[in-house]
Amino acid sequence: MSDAHAARRERLREHCSAGGTDAVLVTRPANVQYLTGCEPCGATLLLTRERALLVLPADLPPDDTGEHAHAPDLPRLGAEPEQDTVESAAAAAASLGVADLAVEEHDLTVSRHRAVAALTAGVRLADLRQVVERMRVVKDEQEIGELRIAAEIADQALGELLESILVGRTERHLAMELERRMIDHGADRAAFPVSVGTGAHSGRITHAPTDRRVEEGDFLTVSLGARYRGYAVSTTRTFVIGAAPAPWQVELHRLVFEAQRAGREALCPGAPGSAPDRAARDILQAAGHVEARPRPFGHGVGLEVREAPQIGPAETGKLDNRVPVTVGPGVHLPGRGGVRIEDTLVVRPLEEGGPELLTITTKELLAL
Amino acid sequence: MSDAHAARRERLREHCSAGGTDAVLVTRPANVQYLTGCEPCGATLLLTRERALLVLPADLPPDDTGEHAHAPDLPRLGAEPEQDTVESAAAAAASLGVADLAVEEHDLTVSRHRAVAALTAGVRLADLRQVVERMRVVKDEQEIGELRIAAEIADQALGELLESILVGRTERHLAMELERRMIDHGADRAAFPVSVGTGAHSGRITHAPTDRRVEEGDFLTVSLGARYRGYAVSTTRTFVIGAAPAPWQVELHRLVFEAQRAGREALCPGAPGSAPDRAARDILQAAGHVEARPRPFGHGVGLEVREAPQIGPAETGKLDNRVPVTVGPGVHLPGRGGVRIEDTLVVRPLEEGGPELLTITTKELLAL
Repeated sequence: MSDAHAARRERLREHCSAGGTDAVLVTRPANVQYLTGCEPCGATLLLTRERALLVLPADLPPDDTGEHAHAPDLPRLGAEPEQDTVESAAAAAASLGVADLAVEEHDLTVSRHRAVAALTAGVRLADLRQVVERMRVVKDEQEIGELRIAAEIADQALGELLESILVGRTERHLAMELERRMIDHGADRAAFPVSVGTGAHSGRITHAPTDRRVEEGDFLTVSLGARYRGYAVSTTRTFVIGAAPAPWQVELHRLVFEAQRAGREALCPGAPGSAPDRAARDILQAAGHVEARPRPFGHGVGLEVREAPQIGPAETGKLDNRVPVTVGPGVHLPGRGGVRIEDTLVVRPLEEGGPELLTITTKELLAL
Repeated sequence: MSDAHAARRERLREHCSAGGTDAVLVTRPANVQYLTGCEPCGATLLLTRERALLVLPADLPPDDTGEHAHAPDLPRLGAEPEQDTVESAAAAAASLGVADLAVEEHDLTVSRHRAVAALTAGVRLADLRQVVERMRVVKDEQEIGELRIAAEIADQALGELLESILVGRTERHLAMELERRMIDHGADRAAFPVSVGTGAHSGRITHAPTDRRVEEGDFLTVSLGARYRGYAVSTTRTFVIGAAPAPWQVELHRLVFEAQRAGREALCPGAPGSAPDRAARDILQAAGHVEARPRPFGHGVGLEVREAPQIGPAETGKLDNRVPVTVGPGVHLPGRGGVRIEDTLVVRPLEEGGPELLTITTKELLAL
């Protein structure tokens, strides 16, 4: 992968040269990882026209690079003991005679920015803006390969859970078990804290697992994702506990299933980024489920579990080929529970078969 | 606890009034939690002379306050859909006619600070600095009670692990098991990713667990901590696997044990904050273990697992009564492994019995 990382750094250099900047400080962890392969550890990347320098935290032992920094080809130095990596990288930029330095103002705090300015007297500071974030939107096939494996891991963990006895176990236990199974299957770690919601907690877009136990007749909503070599996916399924779901459960599940299918089918290179959310929302709204404050039904995924583009009503851009996104509409009825169904898919043109589904666990209403 | 939170807000108000500021925006998650009881969820607290307003993220469902926001007495509003909580709180400050607004420049990014400035035209912005962090250093007995329970949870999880078979299991599995056991015993979650280092990985100050399996004759270093009602502790122990530790292992363990004891005994109200580190380091250095770039042997703990004060050579302040800190010296011999021993203790005067040890698992060299 180091060739790919070097190519990405070259693209960033070209972008900066075109903008009149001769060096950049990259601090946002996922951006540093994208450009170096170095896992998030507080490192800062200094990129000038001729050089690339990775500055590691002073408290990271130099011999402890195994899990933290996979960037063997990249010159590196440890931050000075009294400095953080941003300050040390800024001092290095000044000593290299940099004239214009772009920084990530959406990541640097006001205090750190002031420290950078103090260490780079005479250097003009500029805002890099979200240039690296935009580079990260369209994935290469290597990245999509990692996402595919991350999705397989999440599917395996979920599949095993579905074969076990669920009644009587708490949301917290089920969530822990899913995290453990993902790690058993080779995940770096869970991409986000696993959410398990039963009964009245089911169908929520965010739910921190509680000590509530699974009961007969419950809806059970499980939201999980694995991270593999830095790349994260997200998937959500809703099942029913016991042999016979109630008519309202069958009805609500069918509705969300249809909405989610419509959302997936709206994924197409060139389509508006708001289209999948719109398609899913139209179906839910026609059935009377209108949210006062609509929250987007999806988002991009990659080195961050939630990154550009947003798949929501406010998105103004268009979808691109090879952009992995989530599509996850749901309905939550306060006091009763609800249904949420979410997949991670890669936008692909129709000639290539249309959107590529990564999370393949069945979306039918299984009675467990 | 809401009385305690209200009292803390009143102290912050008095501090700000004395400094000529009539309102503050608090954004750093642990500071918001300290002042409101609201668990970290991206909320922003706006505090004026007369009012306190908690602004919650737009994507946090209003009914989903159970796990995220325990601040029933506090007026709250959801952020506008297109704004984050900082922007919505800034707009609220402007509409309330605030003249001077202090913000946490060590927490706000440059971009967010610009957005705040744009939304508060005519309002003078100031830097609150680490005022709330300093308020958090000395704990009340309620907070120390939560830390005591967090330490008990970590001790229980560790004690159970020591009774199980360890040879042949991987670092990653042991770390997962400790996390699960802490949650079983009532932890909110692990305070930080559990670190398990075997063989040549033992004794490291930071080590991400690998797939290496525990072998006979290994040193095994385990570093873990529970979070309970927001409060985190940290403890580290080093054991040896098999019946008979090698002479160098006995020797090294004895040395680190002595160093850690000296560090603990240097904890005393009014003593320099550097004293525990100095006391421990002197013993290790006298035995020839000199670090080229010394990393502090300890730090404060509380709502953040690493907070003020720093217990290191560069600390210039003095220790206060009722400040919980870690003391955790260690030695790592590259290629061979090492020993690290860390406790969480509360600084107490000698009349009250001296430092209160929270993490009570034995520090002897157990052969497991």
